[in-house]
Amino acid sequence: MPTYRLDLAYDGTAFHGYARQPDVRTVQGELEDALFKHTGPLPTSVAGRTDAGVHARGQVVSFAPPEAADTGRVLRSLRSQVAPDIGVVALRRVAGGFDARFSAAWRRYRYRVRNTGVPDPFDRLYALAVPEPLDVAAMHRAAAHFVGRHDFASLCRASPTGTTVRTVLAAGWRVAGSSLCFDVVARAFCHQMVRSQVALCLEVGRGRLSPADVPAVLAARDRNAARGAAAPHGLTLWEVGYDRTPAP
Amino acid sequence: MPTYRLDLAYDGTAFHGYARQPDVRTVQGELEDALFKHTGPLPTSVAGRTDAGVHARGQVVSFAPPEAADTGRVLRSLRSQVAPDIGVVALRRVAGGFDARFSAAWRRYRYRVRNTGVPDPFDRLYALAVPEPLDVAAMHRAAAHFVGRHDFASLCRASPTGTTVRTVLAAGWRVAGSSLCFDVVARAFCHQMVRSQVALCLEVGRGRLSPADVPAVLAARDRNAARGAAAPHGLTLWEVGYDRTPAP
Repeated sequence: MPTYRLDLAYDGTAFHGYARQPDVRTVQGELEDALFKHTGPLPTSVAGRTDAGVHARGQVVSFAPPEAADTGRVLRSLRSQVAPDIGVVALRRVAGGFDARFSAAWRRYRYRVRNTGVPDPFDRLYALAVPEPLDVAAMHRAAAHFVGRHDFASLCRASPTGTTVRTVLAAGWRVAGSSLCFDVVARAFCHQMVRSQVALCLEVGRGRLSPADVPAVLAARDRNAARGAAAPHGLTLWEVGYDRTPAP
Repeated sequence: MPTYRLDLAYDGTAFHGYARQPDVRTVQGELEDALFKHTGPLPTSVAGRTDAGVHARGQVVSFAPPEAADTGRVLRSLRSQVAPDIGVVALRRVAGGFDARFSAAWRRYRYRVRNTGVPDPFDRLYALAVPEPLDVAAMHRAAAHFVGRHDFASLCRASPTGTTVRTVLAAGWRVAGSSLCFDVVARAFCHQMVRSQVALCLEVGRGRLSPADVPAVLAARDRNAARGAAAPHGLTLWEVGYDRTPAP
């Protein structure tokens, strides 16, 4: 069957997340409403089911319609149909069997914290404002404990089924102007994992926890051992990789 | 009298412009409502009365209350009161006689055009999308005709009183990634002048006018000789200078 890959960016502010839900505005709902005019209803696959308020720059969707599509025409049509807070970046035919979710080798998320008392109205929807000083070096040391294969039950919203064991390939904080960036790459993430990691790191940054406390939080395998989840608007699905080795 | 300078940034998307108007949300209205709790009602002066939908990064406001204020306390109070689409960047006491409007030596505005067919949802509120190719070199040559002292009647919304003669110190287009930036510096601007300059340059960029047509548009001193005004959301009041020489 002809198979297509769609690359998407979206400002998550006004969406109730990626996944379609009845009676609320979702990215999947808007996208599929536009796409199905060309393909008819069919299953679509997505690399990252982002939560309400979470943004995406490198989201990937795939679908395999019964008949081949004119990608140029469909791309123009999708761009004209979806609202401007969804950007349809690219559409191309790919090898049969490609699946945006199951073929993905890794996902990279970025969480941004604006760490200054001076407000920036242009960043308010895309970074968490934390005016008080944060110990970024300690946050970076805390994040190092996430790397590797761990049971992230403490840092994931409970799922009735399925494992919470995940493999994190890279995680760290860096200073970028007046902001702090947390970049984390994993083969896959469980629900609210990045935002829970960020909330834990912020407690370290404020001096309420030490980086050395992180292993015990993970070992507890108990959501109550964590420090909640940071607000969604600081989080962006940055990139999805389909080869085995993410760029550094 | 003690005199204060307030530096502001704002996302103009949800405001009906800077200037206070009854029954609609304005920057001046929100700011003064917060400020007057400390100073009581008093006149405030502003460097640039931006229109509905226009943004600001370097707006300046001044006021002279009857009694000296605790700037740290007032700054914290303003930041806590105003909505997050207004950023109160700084507040400081300045020499008596300073007036944000009348002391300003020059204003710099920037207009951004996103010139690619690939949409960017994060830029949709801050740049005009023009997917078709534009001749930037021709636009830059067109802009050169704005520099100097001219009657900009063709490029200003009619004002029942006052002159439309203005002195433009610098004007030009440059490529910045997928965007084109128009930077224009003038001692002062008349109403809709920058957006009218941009609309005219865009017609040049599309090849419908030549750069050499610009002097005739100016010489006509007739609003109908122009090409309307570009949409407000691409425009940002970038910087206001209080010495005589703007940085290049």
